[in-house]
Amino acid sequence: MSDKVRVTVWNEFRHEKSHEGVKKVYPEGMHRAIAQGLEEAGGFEVRTATLDEPEHGLTDEVLENTDVITWWGHAAHQEVSDEIVEKLHRRVLAGMGLVALHSAHFSKIFRAVTGTNCTLKWREVGEKERLWNIEPGHPITQGIGEHFELPHVEMYGERFGIPTPDKLLFISWFEGGEVFRSGCTFERGHGRVFYFRPGHETYPIFYDDNVRRVIANACRWAAPRIIMADKCPNVPAIEEIRSEDSAAGKAGIAQSGG
Amino acid sequence: MSDKVRVTVWNEFRHEKSHEGVKKVYPEGMHRAIAQGLEEAGGFEVRTATLDEPEHGLTDEVLENTDVITWWGHAAHQEVSDEIVEKLHRRVLAGMGLVALHSAHFSKIFRAVTGTNCTLKWREVGEKERLWNIEPGHPITQGIGEHFELPHVEMYGERFGIPTPDKLLFISWFEGGEVFRSGCTFERGHGRVFYFRPGHETYPIFYDDNVRRVIANACRWAAPRIIMADKCPNVPAIEEIRSEDSAAGKAGIAQSGG
Amino acid sequence: MSDKVRVTVWNEFRHEKSHEGVKKVYPEGMHRAIAQGLEEAGGFEVRTATLDEPEHGLTDEVLENTDVITWWGHAAHQEVSDEIVEKLHRRVLAGMGLVALHSAHFSKIFRAVTGTNCTLKWREVGEKERLWNIEPGHPITQGIGEHFELPHVEMYGERFGIPTPDKLLFISWFEGGEVFRSGCTFERGHGRVFYFRPGHETYPIFYDDNVRRVIANACRWAAPRIIMADKCPNVPAIEEIRSEDSAAGKAGIAQSGG
Amino acid sequence: MSDKVRVTVWNEFRHEKSHEGVKKVYPEGMHRAIAQGLEEAGGFEVRTATLDEPEHGLTDEVLENTDVITWWGHAAHQEVSDEIVEKLHRRVLAGMGLVALHSAHFSKIFRAVTGTNCTLKWREVGEKERLWNIEPGHPITQGIGEHFELPHVEMYGERFGIPTPDKLLFISWFEGGEVFRSGCTFERGHGRVFYFRPGHETYPIFYDDNVRRVIANACRWAAPRIIMADKCPNVPAIEEIRSEDSAAGKAGIAQSGG
Repeated sequence: MSDKVRVTVWNEFRHEKSHEGVKKVYPEGMHRAIAQGLEEAGGFEVRTATLDEPEHGLTDEVLENTDVITWWGHAAHQEVSDEIVEKLHRRVLAGMGLVALHSAHFSKIFRAVTGTNCTLKWREVGEKERLWNIEPGHPITQGIGEHFELPHVEMYGERFGIPTPDKLLFISWFEGGEVFRSGCTFERGHGRVFYFRPGHETYPIFYDDNVRRVIANACRWAAPRIIMADKCPNVPAIEEIRSEDSAAGKAGIAQSGG
Repeated sequence: MSDKVRVTVWNEFRHEKSHEGVKKVYPEGMHRAIAQGLEEAGGFEVRTATLDEPEHGLTDEVLENTDVITWWGHAAHQEVSDEIVEKLHRRVLAGMGLVALHSAHFSKIFRAVTGTNCTLKWREVGEKERLWNIEPGHPITQGIGEHFELPHVEMYGERFGIPTPDKLLFISWFEGGEVFRSGCTFERGHGRVFYFRPGHETYPIFYDDNVRRVIANACRWAAPRIIMADKCPNVPAIEEIRSEDSAAGKAGIAQSGG
Repeated sequence: MSDKVRVTVWNEFRHEKSHEGVKKVYPEGMHRAIAQGLEEAGGFEVRTATLDEPEHGLTDEVLENTDVITWWGHAAHQEVSDEIVEKLHRRVLAGMGLVALHSAHFSKIFRAVTGTNCTLKWREVGEKERLWNIEPGHPITQGIGEHFELPHVEMYGERFGIPTPDKLLFISWFEGGEVFRSGCTFERGHGRVFYFRPGHETYPIFYDDNVRRVIANACRWAAPRIIMADKCPNVPAIEEIRSEDSAAGKAGIAQSGG
Repeated sequence: MSDKVRVTVWNEFRHEKSHEGVKKVYPEGMHRAIAQGLEEAGGFEVRTATLDEPEHGLTDEVLENTDVITWWGHAAHQEVSDEIVEKLHRRVLAGMGLVALHSAHFSKIFRAVTGTNCTLKWREVGEKERLWNIEPGHPITQGIGEHFELPHVEMYGERFGIPTPDKLLFISWFEGGEVFRSGCTFERGHGRVFYFRPGHETYPIFYDDNVRRVIANACRWAAPRIIMADKCPNVPAIEEIRSEDSAAGKAGIAQSGG
């Protein structure tokens, strides 16, 4: 593998074209702001891909050369093709990292890897959020202090409909009275998955230093150690079988397990 | 809710019709053997459903009156309709229990709730298996001693491609040299999921007292405490918002979170 | 076992005697308020025990007849004898439930079972707390809505120095800006442990309906299914050993493992 | 921090002096064999320490310059001073790694960090063990294939009295019929803990290539990212408190939380 972590920053890239307010904040699209953050952090080879490109920009060639994919989608989750999601899912299970950002909680790929509906409460009045770092020793939180604030955000509140995360890294406090599990790690197959709450189309959150640092840390953390497509092989015995029951064996249906 | 746990025992029910050896072991189908085990244990209202019934026997009315579903499939996983699987999945997330048996590791519903490929190694020579009970205080292992044996089984070996289980209850030792995580609990949404390795079409495993006891315990454990279909509501603030940024707020795209 | 869960409510019982403000809120001691809550809930056989009784009220006879112990201590953790703590710890490992309340985060027994220092941030200005129920299907949260409030509390803030809980049931929002993992389950040996944040000597929190309901639910949940003192036995082989190396074996030091 | 991981290899170092058979296998002590493995792997600064040195070789100066400690003890666990164990424990919570080997399951430090009794079954007839690698993507298993064998070992069998590990990396199959969770990771405070089953005084296990590789991987994995001694501070409110109840507040007992 290359020394650099090869990140594909995926973005729905619709709001930025249709909403003036969004265009003002992210004139080249959120993917460019996220990519820029990684480029400035260093150690990454970054490319971007968006929904309206052919195959959503996620050809086999792109996926095979991606160590970690970051995902932002919102209004068009249903337009992401099931076939591409299945390929992404297989690739995560084989070892590719996945960093799901903000409204990607409802993306097909995040729901597929968690096995849950990923519901939550939400409110959009631009309130304050404070993210508490509860695992200061985790690679993803390095360089982040005890907490950091975002002055104006869309609120996401519990219950967040996910499985118990392997590690819960951030808990958010919202001015309006809610809390949220804002940084969650999962492992699926040989791949590592990080959900990170911040990020929204109308607030300049992907320019925030702490947010960028967490995303960069997450992309390093999620980089694969191995890429391995699991199989379901019929294997010979290692030890001698002495209790074999040939009658029972014979009735067996050969494709078992497969 | 009724005092009794309402269990639907689902079976692919194909091998029993097409293979003489299987028919001999399970003349009325594996589902009847499993159902009988539950009926003898007591405390259950049991019905069965099979692949070739209309809607695979899983109408809305059946699902709404099911607390726990047990699942056995093998050669025809792909014939289970995606629509039914989606309904099952939603119902598990809402609180219904799922007990996946043996080759159901590869069923669509188990893969959907785990978010993984559930691969494993396998071999079918009728060797001996010994299941070690590593959580004697768990409700599912009550009445099971330190270990129990099955004289002739199909082997399943690690690596089993699942997420780390919430609780690992049984580890199998196989005569041929492998090991397997044979009893695993997961929670998804409000539903509880148990994977149990034993069970095979050509061995009389669903008549085994220990296997039956584990399945009955699992059906009791997986019975829902609540049934709740999660929503993704836009909620008003509980506390007064003082840092509101109306400019940013206005640019917001209303269907966020949904 | 008796049908009723036998709970021993343990209390340091010092503040109530030395501080007028505390005495006013809990004239008979916090243990009586907690015990009363359980008695009113029904299904419990409740006794109390306090620090200044002989053996802290925790004789062998008491422990042997205790299914679940609730613990409240604050200023005198160091006065609890190591010998009693060791007995308590052994009993938890054997299956007894432990419900640690509020400042019991720093008790010897909670630190012993968690293996951590259980540090946190704190502040005592009587601010508002809102506890979010993030696991509405868990036995401990039954009857509790999406959240409940306590109008005046001592604040506990993250990072809470505990191992990742098995299940995180409540997250607190504090008016002053912090969050806290306020309801955490752990398993140790055959015993179940619940940490619950609310409860303080100068606020009438142990009279609160939601707090009482959670404590009662926790005592039911933590009731032992088995009581088993683990041993470390030298066991004979179950299967024939063919690769035995008698030379190596002979050099062995017999008390291994023990 | 230095680029190299600073490992202190701790050994009871008694059997090697008193038993001829052990002396033959480990003439300079097991600690030297373990240290040599790390030195050959490269990337480590290795020192050793043993029970009969002053302060068991674990002075403050040594601990402050240790990133990861490996621990082997067997017959003299009780001779390790409680004061040293407490210092070790504090240091693990602050971030130091701990790699507990074989009979260290019963060491005071491993019991203290797990909070459990760490009991197991055992047998010493020199049978064969096969360790299955169930997490091929984990840093600790890099370079290890699907499984590896040790021809003659002391058996450890389940139930192993530990809390559910964060990650289970190896499961052992034993010729005599048992299984064991042989590679387990835990986090405590900011420190990472790995338990690894292989290793015994009369078998040349610490010369085995796979065992050495796992230990070296574990020492790299357990190296601290931060060293942080947690405190329990009284903190001012970040947000304005409006619901303060001064009467209640006044009654408060100041040392709360501490």
